[in-house]
Amino acid sequence: MPAIAVHGGAGDIPPAELTPEREAAYRTGLEQALRAGQRILEAGGPSLDAVVAAVQVLEDNPLFNAGRGAVIAANGICELDASLMEGRDLRAGAVTGLRHVKSPIGLARLVMDVSPHVMLSGQGAEEFALEQGLEPVANRYFVTERRQRELAAALDASAGSFRESLMGTVGAVALDAAGDLAAATSTGGMTAKRWGRVGDSPVIGAGTYAANDCCAVSATGHGEYFIRATVAHEIASLIRYAGKSVREAADIVVHGQLQQMGGEGGVIVVGRDGTLALPFNSRGMLRGSIDAQGRMTTGIL
Amino acid sequence: MPAIAVHGGAGDIPPAELTPEREAAYRTGLEQALRAGQRILEAGGPSLDAVVAAVQVLEDNPLFNAGRGAVIAANGICELDASLMEGRDLRAGAVTGLRHVKSPIGLARLVMDVSPHVMLSGQGAEEFALEQGLEPVANRYFVTERRQRELAAALDASAGSFRESLMGTVGAVALDAAGDLAAATSTGGMTAKRWGRVGDSPVIGAGTYAANDCCAVSATGHGEYFIRATVAHEIASLIRYAGKSVREAADIVVHGQLQQMGGEGGVIVVGRDGTLALPFNSRGMLRGSIDAQGRMTTGIL
Repeated sequence: MPAIAVHGGAGDIPPAELTPEREAAYRTGLEQALRAGQRILEAGGPSLDAVVAAVQVLEDNPLFNAGRGAVIAANGICELDASLMEGRDLRAGAVTGLRHVKSPIGLARLVMDVSPHVMLSGQGAEEFALEQGLEPVANRYFVTERRQRELAAALDASAGSFRESLMGTVGAVALDAAGDLAAATSTGGMTAKRWGRVGDSPVIGAGTYAANDCCAVSATGHGEYFIRATVAHEIASLIRYAGKSVREAADIVVHGQLQQMGGEGGVIVVGRDGTLALPFNSRGMLRGSIDAQGRMTTGIL
Repeated sequence: MPAIAVHGGAGDIPPAELTPEREAAYRTGLEQALRAGQRILEAGGPSLDAVVAAVQVLEDNPLFNAGRGAVIAANGICELDASLMEGRDLRAGAVTGLRHVKSPIGLARLVMDVSPHVMLSGQGAEEFALEQGLEPVANRYFVTERRQRELAAALDASAGSFRESLMGTVGAVALDAAGDLAAATSTGGMTAKRWGRVGDSPVIGAGTYAANDCCAVSATGHGEYFIRATVAHEIASLIRYAGKSVREAADIVVHGQLQQMGGEGGVIVVGRDGTLALPFNSRGMLRGSIDAQGRMTTGIL
């Protein structure tokens, strides 16, 4: 009965970037994340633990734009965002602008569990992390050679000509044996981002949402559009109030509303009965799932 | 046909704080904000201009917790948040953690109009403000003697015993002659807040939302609950998908969902036909409106 899905970003992935080795590495990374979540669900653990475990595997994997391997902002620094939500009591935690917290999703969980707040940002969020005893890491921990090359390409390009091939974000949604839903999302944002830009990933209702009466959602794509369309809560509302199925609701938002606005990307959704939907309107979305029958699948294009 | 509503915070306003002089000053401030918006609407101007003008009057008025007169964080600094949205194209702008921007709602508007982003935070947002030619103000500009007394009381109080009497935030919603809706919200957050806490005010879908097919919403109250309940977009969804009227939708969220969670506060809502709803579940909410018939009213308890 438990089910879990993960994503590792969406976008116009050029075939040249998708060598057989790279594709195998992406699929392996997605499978490792799924298994980390599945182990918890199979043992009867909560969906919240499962989505955090799955996202932490992706944060630790330098291939994905979250945690280590995050894209680099225009100032040469990695600035990380994350959020999570559990569907039983609608509790939530979110962090933005982190520079020295190894697992942003882990800190989002502490914000939810320990602080009286839902969302913390920047130096204040890092102060909270230190008070909670988290060992800080140097910003260099997150930086990889590949992301440095991408930043150089972005800064070299004449204004606007650089286009992120894979709009990164990682995320997970899960249903556990107790019927509880949860969602988690973590990201490094956009390459060469400026001005403390905040995307949809740490915005509850946009990049992340979970409610036991309808679904859990994690999104990935061009964050500005996802905030304006309140993507995750819109999918929940279509299920809750418009009588749509999980798949219909996800398609209406991804292939209808977002596409009409010009918003590229996708979502992963799990319904209260374990139904999964992983639609995207971009060329590809790194994704994987283990359905209620235990079948694992991964996909890229 | 145009209509406009404003709020200046909600909470358990103690009678002792509500002297006749203070009450008169609150009402005058609300009326000034309403008239600033009304002037624009009557001249056939856009609702977006009207809500920004109304909110800027409240930001400039030291009585209200936004702009000058904002509450003070635990570090002695005012940190300001704001957001706005227009209902025609679902464009939006949001800023958080500002320390030197005189009108946070003005900067949110620039984020929407000029930057490719929706949400900017902290020093990055201030860098963007400087690039846009905004004259910075010293943080001291925002600080008032009353808020310093409140901060001292909050820091003196044993942990958790200080309770904000008026959860401040100011906001405005409007419908213009062209049928366009808009919403704007601005705040100093919570007295003695720590850790870069972000409330619902700068979160699109929580503190602010507007869409021409249903309504414009600005919220005020205990922000953490308002984020978890995705208050503004939930009201829109009840109208859009559940066939609720503006008043029904606002009541369901404020007196139903929020009350059940323990979330105190209120909202102002204007529908596409100019219907107004200003419900609150706290003891009071500073509020005012000019309805489609041109009748101005203000209220506190």
